[in-house]
Amino acid sequence: MVKKYIIDETLLPTRWYNILPDLPEPLPPSLNPATEEPVKPQDLEAIFPKEIVRQEVSLDRFVTIPEEVREVYSIWRPTPLVRASRLERVLKTPARIYFKYEGVSPPGSHKPNTAVAQAYYNLREGVQRLTTETGAGQWGSALAFATNLFGLKLTVYMVKASYQQKPYRAILMKTWGAEVVPSPSNRTRVGREILEREPDNPGSLGIAISEAIEDAVTHEHTKYSLGSVLNHVLMHQTVIGLEAIEQMKLADDFPDYVVGCVGGGSNFAGLAYPFYMLVRDRKAPKNVKFIAVEPTAAPSLTKGEYMYDYGDTARLTPLIKMYTLGHDYIPPPIHAGGLRYHGAAPTLSLLKKHGIFDSVAYDQVSVFNAAVLFAQAEGFIPAPESAHAIKAVVDLALEAREKNEERVILFNLSGHGLLDLAAYADYFEGRLPAYEYPKEKVVESIERLRAHLASIGIA
Amino acid sequence: MVKKYIIDETLLPTRWYNILPDLPEPLPPSLNPATEEPVKPQDLEAIFPKEIVRQEVSLDRFVTIPEEVREVYSIWRPTPLVRASRLERVLKTPARIYFKYEGVSPPGSHKPNTAVAQAYYNLREGVQRLTTETGAGQWGSALAFATNLFGLKLTVYMVKASYQQKPYRAILMKTWGAEVVPSPSNRTRVGREILEREPDNPGSLGIAISEAIEDAVTHEHTKYSLGSVLNHVLMHQTVIGLEAIEQMKLADDFPDYVVGCVGGGSNFAGLAYPFYMLVRDRKAPKNVKFIAVEPTAAPSLTKGEYMYDYGDTARLTPLIKMYTLGHDYIPPPIHAGGLRYHGAAPTLSLLKKHGIFDSVAYDQVSVFNAAVLFAQAEGFIPAPESAHAIKAVVDLALEAREKNEERVILFNLSGHGLLDLAAYADYFEGRLPAYEYPKEKVVESIERLRAHLASIGIA
Repeated sequence: MVKKYIIDETLLPTRWYNILPDLPEPLPPSLNPATEEPVKPQDLEAIFPKEIVRQEVSLDRFVTIPEEVREVYSIWRPTPLVRASRLERVLKTPARIYFKYEGVSPPGSHKPNTAVAQAYYNLREGVQRLTTETGAGQWGSALAFATNLFGLKLTVYMVKASYQQKPYRAILMKTWGAEVVPSPSNRTRVGREILEREPDNPGSLGIAISEAIEDAVTHEHTKYSLGSVLNHVLMHQTVIGLEAIEQMKLADDFPDYVVGCVGGGSNFAGLAYPFYMLVRDRKAPKNVKFIAVEPTAAPSLTKGEYMYDYGDTARLTPLIKMYTLGHDYIPPPIHAGGLRYHGAAPTLSLLKKHGIFDSVAYDQVSVFNAAVLFAQAEGFIPAPESAHAIKAVVDLALEAREKNEERVILFNLSGHGLLDLAAYADYFEGRLPAYEYPKEKVVESIERLRAHLASIGIA
Repeated sequence: MVKKYIIDETLLPTRWYNILPDLPEPLPPSLNPATEEPVKPQDLEAIFPKEIVRQEVSLDRFVTIPEEVREVYSIWRPTPLVRASRLERVLKTPARIYFKYEGVSPPGSHKPNTAVAQAYYNLREGVQRLTTETGAGQWGSALAFATNLFGLKLTVYMVKASYQQKPYRAILMKTWGAEVVPSPSNRTRVGREILEREPDNPGSLGIAISEAIEDAVTHEHTKYSLGSVLNHVLMHQTVIGLEAIEQMKLADDFPDYVVGCVGGGSNFAGLAYPFYMLVRDRKAPKNVKFIAVEPTAAPSLTKGEYMYDYGDTARLTPLIKMYTLGHDYIPPPIHAGGLRYHGAAPTLSLLKKHGIFDSVAYDQVSVFNAAVLFAQAEGFIPAPESAHAIKAVVDLALEAREKNEERVILFNLSGHGLLDLAAYADYFEGRLPAYEYPKEKVVESIERLRAHLASIGIA
C-alpha cells in the first residue's frame, strides 16, 4: 500500500510559527522608498489591515490561528504526507522520500494558506474589497478562493500577456466571483499612462503591482494583498511544516533533508521553518540540511547578492535586505512563472547568509525531466515550480544510491500541474529552452542596483 | 470544521460488489451483431482478457480485488466523503448533504477505478499493449495513468475534433507515456477509408471505437479496453459505494437519496449499487431513493425506450438490452462530454425498468448554475458531468426546505472541472446553449432502430 500519513483534522495546527524571534540576528529593517528611513507600521497600514501589519513585525514565537481560518483550512487540510515509494523503486535508491502534497487545495497550491488568513483579517477590520496582482494566476486564484468564502470583493490585476495566453486561471478566479482586469488597464492612472504611450504593452508583474496598490489607496474600504516574500505570508505557510512534523512522527521517521522550490520563498519556508525550530530547540533527533531550489533563470539565493533592494521593478515597495539579482533583472520566460522573481524573502535570505540554509539552481529542461519521471512513478502531475524541488530530490536520491547511504528526504510538492499542461506539451515537443544562468545580465542589474543605492546613500 | 470522513487505508475494500445475482430478473443476454445469437465468452475473448470476460458474466456476488490493484488504488483511495455544510448553509436547507469526492485521483475522476483493474488483468494474461477510444479524454487519461503504472503500452484513438480543441487531456495521456492518435487516422483500414472519402472528417466516438478494436484484433499481444456500460466496469466502480457505506457509519448517518450523473452509468452505479445491496439485504436503516441524473441532451433513462440496441453508432458492438435513444442519435455538443451517450448500462436500465431506480434530466445552463453555486460554496470546481448530480441535489435540498423535511442526500462528485474551465468561460460569457430535450430527433432515431430490429428479426 502507498503510505499516506493523514493526521486527523483535530491535529490541524492551532498556531502559526513565527521565525522572527529565532533568527540568528535581528532582521534588518525595511526602508521607506521615499525617505530611506525604516518603514513605520503606519506606512503599511495604508495598504494592509492592522493585524497583518502587527504580524509582519511581531516577535511572538507563535500566533494563534483564528477559528474562522482553521474552519476554511479544514476544507483541504491537513494535507497528506506521502511516502514516494514508487519513485524510490524507480531510482533504486536506499533513500526514503516523502512529500507533503499541497496540490489538494481547491486552487491547487499552497497559496490559500495565507490568502485565507489575509482575507479573514481584512474582513474583520471592515475592509470590503481587496486588490492584488497576479502573473500566471496562482496567487490570484488562491485569493479569489479565499475572498469568495468570506464574502469580500476582489479585483485582480493580471499581467495582460498571461491573461491572453493562459486563460484558465482567469476563469477559475471568475468562477470564485473575482473581477479580473488585464494589466496595464485604464482603471488606474499608472495603467492609463502606460497605455497612452504604448497601447500594446503586454504588462508585467511590476506594472500589475503598481495598479493594484493605486486601486487600493484610491478606493474606500479597499486594501491590498501580497502572496509571498513578506514575513506574515511565510508565517501563515508554516501550517505545512507543523503538520509535516506530526506526520513524520506517524511515519516514525525524520528528514535529513528538507527541500522546496523558491520564488519569493513562501512554500519552502512554510515547510522548512518549523523543522528549523526543532533543530534550534535541540528537539530534532538529527541534524537537518535545508535546501532551497531555484531556477537557473532566477537564482537569487544561489547567484544573487545580499543587499537592500526594492520588491518590485517600479521601486514602489519598501527597500528590503535580501539576496537579489537586482530589481530590474527580468528573468527569461520559464514556465515556472511562480519562480520568476528577482529576490528572496528577507528571513530566508538571512538564514542563507548565515549558512543555515543552502540553495541550488536547475535549468527547466532538467526540471521537466524530473517532473515526468515523478508523474510516471507516482501518478500526480507536479506544477513546474514544484518540479524544481523534485529535481533536487532525484539528485539527492541518486547520490544516496552511489554512496549507499540511507538518507531521508522530505520535500514540498507545492502544487499540481493540471493548469500547466501546455508547459508539458512544450517539453515533449522539444520547444523548451533550458535558460541557463544568464551571468552577464545579472552582473549588470546588480551593478545598476549598487549604483542606485550609492546615489541615495544606502550602503 | 468541515467534516471529512476519511477511512483508514486498511478499510480500502478487498472485494468488489457484483450486482448480477441480485437483479430483480436475469439480465437479457447480449446478442452477437453478426448472428443475432447470444454472445459467447469466446467472442469477447478476441478483444478482452479471459478474467474480464469471466467477470462480465459472473454470478458471484463478490469478486476479490487483487492486491496489486489495491496497491495502486491506495495512491488516492479511500477517497474522502465530505459533509457539504457550506452548501447547506447557502441553500438554508434542513437537508444534510454529503458528497463522495472521486476528483482526488491523479486523472481527476472515478475512471481509474476500472482502468487500473483492466490494465492489471491484461498484464497478468501476457498482454503487452492496450487500445481504447476517448472523446474529451477522461477515459483515455485514466487508462494512460493505469497502463503506465503497470508498464503496458497504450494507444488511444482520440476523436480528432476533441484532440484539436481540447489538447490538455492529450498532453496528460502523453505525460503518462501513452500514444495518442487523432481519429480518424491512417493507422487502420476503417480510418483510411474514411480519410480517403473525407480528409477533413472531424471524427466521432463511433469511429474511434472501430479504430481501437481493429487495431487490437490485428496486432499481437494487444487487447481493447472499454471505460463504461459493461458489467465488469460498473462492478469495479463499486469501491466508491463500499467506501461510502463505511464513511456514512463514521458520520453516524444514512442517505435517503443516492444521486449521481449518468452517461453510460458507471460512476452512479459505483456509488449506488452497494447501497442497493444493503436495501435488498434489509440491512439499510431506511428506504433509499436512487436518482440517476442525465442531460436533457441525452436522456436515455428518462426519455429513451427499453429495447435491444448497439453500443456504438457503427453497429460493431453486441446488441444489448437497455434504455436507448437509438444508436444513430447524436447528442448536441454539451460540455459534459462524458454524458453524451445514447444508451445506459444494461444493469442500470433493468433497475430503472423495475422502478427501483429513478432518473431526471437537466439542461446544461441550469447545471452550470448549480456548478458555480457549488464552487462558490464548497470551493471545489466540479466537472460538468458531476455538476448534473449537483443540480439534482440542489433541487432536492430546496424541496426539503419547502417541506421543512430533514432528508439526507448523498451524491457522487465524480470528477473535478480543472480541465473543463473553457466550459465555465462559455457559461460566464453567455455562450452556453441550454439544449433542451430534442424530442423529434429522439422519436425518429428510435423509430429507425425499431425498423432495423424488425428487419433482422429481433423483437
